Amino acid sequence: MHKGQRSPGALNPQRLIRCIGYSAITCFDQVVREALLEDRMVMVKSSSVDLVTQTDQKVEQLIIQSVKEKFPTHRFIGEESVAAGEPCVLSDEPTWIIDPIDGTTNFVHRFPFVAVSIGFSVNKQVEFGVVYSCLEDKMFTARRGRGSFCNGDPLQVSDQKAIKQSIIATEFGSDRDPEVVDKIFSSLRNILCIPVHGIRSAGTAAINMCLVASGCVEAYYEIGMHVWDLAAASLIVSEAGGVLMDVEGGPFDLMSRRVIAANNRTIAERISGEIQAYAPARDDAAAPGADP
Amino acid sequence: MHKGQRSPGALNPQRLIRCIGYSAITCFDQVVREALLEDRMVMVKSSSVDLVTQTDQKVEQLIIQSVKEKFPTHRFIGEESVAAGEPCVLSDEPTWIIDPIDGTTNFVHRFPFVAVSIGFSVNKQVEFGVVYSCLEDKMFTARRGRGSFCNGDPLQVSDQKAIKQSIIATEFGSDRDPEVVDKIFSSLRNILCIPVHGIRSAGTAAINMCLVASGCVEAYYEIGMHVWDLAAASLIVSEAGGVLMDVEGGPFDLMSRRVIAANNRTIAERISGEIQAYAPARDDAAAPGADP
Repeated sequence: MHKGQRSPGALNPQRLIRCIGYSAITCFDQVVREALLEDRMVMVKSSSVDLVTQTDQKVEQLIIQSVKEKFPTHRFIGEESVAAGEPCVLSDEPTWIIDPIDGTTNFVHRFPFVAVSIGFSVNKQVEFGVVYSCLEDKMFTARRGRGSFCNGDPLQVSDQKAIKQSIIATEFGSDRDPEVVDKIFSSLRNILCIPVHGIRSAGTAAINMCLVASGCVEAYYEIGMHVWDLAAASLIVSEAGGVLMDVEGGPFDLMSRRVIAANNRTIAERISGEIQAYAPARDDAAAPGADP
Repeated sequence: MHKGQRSPGALNPQRLIRCIGYSAITCFDQVVREALLEDRMVMVKSSSVDLVTQTDQKVEQLIIQSVKEKFPTHRFIGEESVAAGEPCVLSDEPTWIIDPIDGTTNFVHRFPFVAVSIGFSVNKQVEFGVVYSCLEDKMFTARRGRGSFCNGDPLQVSDQKAIKQSIIATEFGSDRDPEVVDKIFSSLRNILCIPVHGIRSAGTAAINMCLVASGCVEAYYEIGMHVWDLAAASLIVSEAGGVLMDVEGGPFDLMSRRVIAANNRTIAERISGEIQAYAPARDDAAAPGADP
């Protein structure tokens, strides 16, 4: 952890968290909980296994409206806004990065891991992140330089140094292209047979990363998720003492749709060595005016 | 569900549940919760990924002692007793089938799914089952012919009929023999690419089956777990309206270490058609005096 560093953001992140994060997310949580009882109107996005519901769209609009009232000049990257054609640009401007429901498939099935994820970046750096795991009633928060917390208790990654005594989280994603599936299975088999203690799949990137930050799994890796799945949780991992890395071992890139989040560099590098990497289209690939 | 059928057991299951199930499991739960704060003394069983802790042994002994005081003639099949050389025999006699901690790897890592599982059989038929998911504080119960419950609320499996709109739970187990791993990965790939909505791994057979009973996943399949992982949860699934089947489509056999638990027969049969089956040594294989 990097305690005591002063945030370089032009705005006071603490004020932002107060204004939006804690109180507002509770209201969004209410929408999600009510919807869990009602919303089974499922729409299909990129494929029959990539789902969106009316609740995703409703929650994202609620969050964006709340923020806009207080900060009319701020920018937004929201999963549903991007799906509707809005640009996906991470600029130096203050930007809210929103996944209204991370784990939409879980949500549709009432599987117990569903999260609202809100990150806030300035100068392309995440300044604070909030992941609310609605059904577990766990609020994960992090501010850059100030540590990570779950319901107010400080988080610390696992101190395990041996990959063979580690649990690794990953997901199979929604891409069923045979070449991609080949690589997913090849990577997973390599890692399983190191051998590790086990593989887990909770069904949401944000919660998998919070499990790393909480010390319940040593690492999570995946290719194919999006910036809105990662932004808030990436800060929660690093502020809990963890490391973020690209799946080929280079620096983590928020827009690349690839991540290893681990308790330490040794575990992250060992996993990187076992992954059959591929590169999906970047989140900012098609965005007009995106920074190079 | 088969409401209204009368239990043929010689003993009154309700009395047994009252005597042992609810009150005792709360005491065991206390042991497990305290141990979660302390017990990291891990021992290895069949391989470096098959773990046992002092808490497993302590909880099993507590359960067996409590039952023996009230029912001195009853028999036991307990995970740790069998590991210590006790026979694993399912006879017609009243038999308590106990997994003191299902999800020992989760327990060691503080991953949030850890369960105590207690089944009770007479005439080789499970009469009641209790699965307590300690960290979720969810008590799953079932009595034959009387339905399944979670914290007192009735359970019902998912009504989903389309495999392509289903979530499937499975595990990678602790066997890292390359031929076994080949079959595990081949089966999983076949099922993923049907395609289904997703694959989940909670890390415990009992909780995966309770997720089927709760309607959160449509099916769970695995080869390699044991009778103590399955006994209680198998009744919870069938009493919630689900079906149990062998991985090759035949009748479910409690001692065979193979199961498909699904919301309906169509989904179970479709999964069975995709599984590369293999047969681990039966739980009763080496037991002297085991029924044929």
